[in-house]
Amino acid sequence: MIIDKLIEKIEQTKNPSVIGLDTCFDYLPKEMQEKCNSLEDVSKAITKFNFDLIDTLKDEIPAVKVQVAYYEMYGVEGMKAFRDTIKYARDNGLMVIADVKRNDIGSTASCYSRAYIGASDINGKKITPFESDFITVNGYLGSDGILPFVKDCEQNDKGLFVLVKTSNPTSGELQDLNMENGKTLYNNMASLVDKWGQTTIGKYGYSSIGAVVGATHKEQALLIRKEHPHLFFLIPGYGAQGGKAEDLAVCFENGKGGIVNSSRGILCAYKKPEYAGLDYKQAALKAAINMKKDITRFI
Amino acid sequence: MIIDKLIEKIEQTKNPSVIGLDTCFDYLPKEMQEKCNSLEDVSKAITKFNFDLIDTLKDEIPAVKVQVAYYEMYGVEGMKAFRDTIKYARDNGLMVIADVKRNDIGSTASCYSRAYIGASDINGKKITPFESDFITVNGYLGSDGILPFVKDCEQNDKGLFVLVKTSNPTSGELQDLNMENGKTLYNNMASLVDKWGQTTIGKYGYSSIGAVVGATHKEQALLIRKEHPHLFFLIPGYGAQGGKAEDLAVCFENGKGGIVNSSRGILCAYKKPEYAGLDYKQAALKAAINMKKDITRFI
Repeated sequence: MIIDKLIEKIEQTKNPSVIGLDTCFDYLPKEMQEKCNSLEDVSKAITKFNFDLIDTLKDEIPAVKVQVAYYEMYGVEGMKAFRDTIKYARDNGLMVIADVKRNDIGSTASCYSRAYIGASDINGKKITPFESDFITVNGYLGSDGILPFVKDCEQNDKGLFVLVKTSNPTSGELQDLNMENGKTLYNNMASLVDKWGQTTIGKYGYSSIGAVVGATHKEQALLIRKEHPHLFFLIPGYGAQGGKAEDLAVCFENGKGGIVNSSRGILCAYKKPEYAGLDYKQAALKAAINMKKDITRFI
Repeated sequence: MIIDKLIEKIEQTKNPSVIGLDTCFDYLPKEMQEKCNSLEDVSKAITKFNFDLIDTLKDEIPAVKVQVAYYEMYGVEGMKAFRDTIKYARDNGLMVIADVKRNDIGSTASCYSRAYIGASDINGKKITPFESDFITVNGYLGSDGILPFVKDCEQNDKGLFVLVKTSNPTSGELQDLNMENGKTLYNNMASLVDKWGQTTIGKYGYSSIGAVVGATHKEQALLIRKEHPHLFFLIPGYGAQGGKAEDLAVCFENGKGGIVNSSRGILCAYKKPEYAGLDYKQAALKAAINMKKDITRFI
């Protein structure tokens, strides 16, 4: 089961964190930026930056999370960088979470699923355009918008992280409201995720159908952890968004149960005074190791 | 205001419907399919099919809706077909709704927004990778996940359709539950959409920030129409999904207030016995005219 593989990768690297390759043009070093005159140039520069980070970090981290929005904003050329980054990370033994937050009615959801965790069929030839290990999805449409993804998880040993309680400041506007059954919207969503994941529970008791739970909302994370022991958490919001290691410890049980993401904190480490004199690769490596130390103090 | 332009296009064509170019490989005529051996071939075949439909339908319809999932499933090559289809439709005077249902935290939402209704900046050069007139978004994350899109709508005269009550069978699983304020989740979402759209209300009283309201849920559509008179509806679910013209009439007031989508019903019309002997272009044209007649009988 893919969730077992992720848990074992975390144990092997002793690192429950994932580096977010949200590689915006603005994050690149000035000398790389200056050479860019076209989308093709930008795509190549981002790809080089990502490959360098993968080379540098691959023995220290279990996985990367690749946020597709940062690639879509550079059009078709950006999507090439997305495709090549995912492939390079997987070829180098890293697990890949494609952070795409896709969602639609069933027939359309199955197309999205083919793009990332299934396969398209062309006259009997199977094609896996952006093959990843896990993807993020949004469950607002209910079960029939998610089950096509679940089916591909079962068939191809892939995993999902469904948005439950997101890390952004206004996530409570809808997610924290109580519903007629006395539970909040995010907790109703968590119950659905639990249900969708019953067929993919692995040997450590966690399901390949997990939940996105922000590091910035400790109280809610604690409640979800208690009520839904099978849910493995993808935890964004650490670092640049304000989430602290001591707060996100509630997401874990005996050191297991989640993986914490940091993007800007690692990609842009080379801009910080504390890493002065290091290039982006060495700064990212130091920042990743510091993050690992910071988190593992508490879990 | 873009919503005024859409309303005027609907009046000019006397047609409150939008054709969904959800052009799956399986929808192509056999002789086009057989020539495809690679993603590049598929991309070219889909592009040709779409261009043919745009050429044939452009004087009869106000807009096309392009569902990106059907292109993502063919990878980078698929995204080329998506990009070229959007551009060709706009160059031919059609308005384009990019059906992408994107959603994320603010910083990431602003990247998605640049991809479809804003611009990416490369050393001062503005680039609009998949420029559309409207896009669909998912508001589960609350205001700060949507406001970056709203800002681009204000600055660039673009529009949104936010998922409120979706057309799929299980949409009620979460959307129909009552919340602590006595209103359903979909109605709470509608109230947020109303708020987000206050700055973009046009001369006909509708906002450029509209709502997705499925044709398959008449009761809910009626309630949203009554409580939120400024919301313009994008109405999926007609035809293949089971929504009927007489049911979706509740979405309209004096013939205005919404636009109805049909995808498979038009793209695959050439396969239906009633259009036997017609090629896919002529069958699509007849089906589109029949759809227009069917809908306008009731609104």
